[in-house]
Amino acid sequence: MRRIDSSKNEQIKAWKKLHTKKGREKAGQFLVEGFHLVEEALRASIKVNTVLLTDETIPPQEWPLAELDVIMISPQVMKELAETETPQGVIAVCELPETPDAEITEGKYLLVDRVQDPGNLGTMIRTADSAGLTGVIVGDGCVDIFNGKLIRASQGSIFHLPVLKGDLVDWVERCKQAQIPVFGTALKGASSYSAIEPQRDFALLMGNEGEGVSEELLELTDQNLYIPIYGEAESLNVAVATGILLYYLRG
Amino acid sequence: MRRIDSSKNEQIKAWKKLHTKKGREKAGQFLVEGFHLVEEALRASIKVNTVLLTDETIPPQEWPLAELDVIMISPQVMKELAETETPQGVIAVCELPETPDAEITEGKYLLVDRVQDPGNLGTMIRTADSAGLTGVIVGDGCVDIFNGKLIRASQGSIFHLPVLKGDLVDWVERCKQAQIPVFGTALKGASSYSAIEPQRDFALLMGNEGEGVSEELLELTDQNLYIPIYGEAESLNVAVATGILLYYLRG
Repeated sequence: MRRIDSSKNEQIKAWKKLHTKKGREKAGQFLVEGFHLVEEALRASIKVNTVLLTDETIPPQEWPLAELDVIMISPQVMKELAETETPQGVIAVCELPETPDAEITEGKYLLVDRVQDPGNLGTMIRTADSAGLTGVIVGDGCVDIFNGKLIRASQGSIFHLPVLKGDLVDWVERCKQAQIPVFGTALKGASSYSAIEPQRDFALLMGNEGEGVSEELLELTDQNLYIPIYGEAESLNVAVATGILLYYLRG
Repeated sequence: MRRIDSSKNEQIKAWKKLHTKKGREKAGQFLVEGFHLVEEALRASIKVNTVLLTDETIPPQEWPLAELDVIMISPQVMKELAETETPQGVIAVCELPETPDAEITEGKYLLVDRVQDPGNLGTMIRTADSAGLTGVIVGDGCVDIFNGKLIRASQGSIFHLPVLKGDLVDWVERCKQAQIPVFGTALKGASSYSAIEPQRDFALLMGNEGEGVSEELLELTDQNLYIPIYGEAESLNVAVATGILLYYLRG
């Protein structure tokens, strides 16, 4: 079994570059950190190239380590590569999957317009998974879905349901062609969400933390919804709003 | 107007200690950072002792700066004192308010058991404010509510509605004596939330990120609820679950 004890090792330096979107796209790889998430990646159709462990790490017996490239690293190197403050001692180097081009015919979809915070988008994907959605469409201006913080906030849900990327104008059109009603979220010209009935098929469009969904997209939807604010808060967190709407819409 | 340009200044060192709970309690003060939050603190009944600005900061005209102790600090000192990566150039040093001892007779309450993440608890308080709740009761084992990250995640809602602290066993009893139905959240022995009707008065009990609500508390409730998981996720984020339940319960 190979060992790397120095953080100056060229391979370690190369993997550290996977902390940025640019580095991930250049290398075609991303990092997954912690027992639960590595397990989810192994179980999903993600190609795990290498598993990094420290001497103290006790990997679960069911992990197919014999079939994987396992490298032992020092606690110091683990600390360098990990993005959490107290690393669990396991990191997987995975291949970026090809984005599948799904055809939409029916189902329940979350469309995300320019959400910037990886914690928010990860939590939204986790929420979409919980609500049993068919898929999530992440618009071009969103934070990269292979960001480490996003993967951790998704708690593995990013490996459970199709998370597609692309131009939302195009996706809204595809939903409409498939006769799936598209609901935007907006403060003006919108109806309270509770004024509509739960839906068998739907696409829900959620937007940027500060600006919401773009005007261009709001004009393409079938109907725009808002969540009433009964107190003095100006708005809800976007992941919380996603949960309220998805659980209401699915009925 | 006073100026402090060195981060070695004793006063600056003393304020830096307000980043920890221990430091806040010892000094009886806490920090509020950024335009929006300082404005909310000024508008609320929070006593603002000192406002720290940099030369580049342009405070809103309506701020009563003439009545406040304003100190100009260097960008370097601002960076030391601020907890955000790109500080807005304004920090208020505020007095910790006395916890009011509210009497409960009716209304809608959120009770929080041992939530550890300041972002989660702040978002829960923001959500409770949005849903028009009467108050939030933060149990003894929760993260400190004057944590900077919590205040930022609450987006000022911590200044909008009563946020009380204390022993939750005691508070659950008080709610029950006031004939306010208390709903716990649990996976076992619980009903799907949609099986109950929206309520005029209620207390909703949400629990720790990993462990949920303590067994001891769950035995004291009138009824325990769960949110169905339709996909492969193991659970919902606690703030998202709070949003789904509060908006459902208030009807």
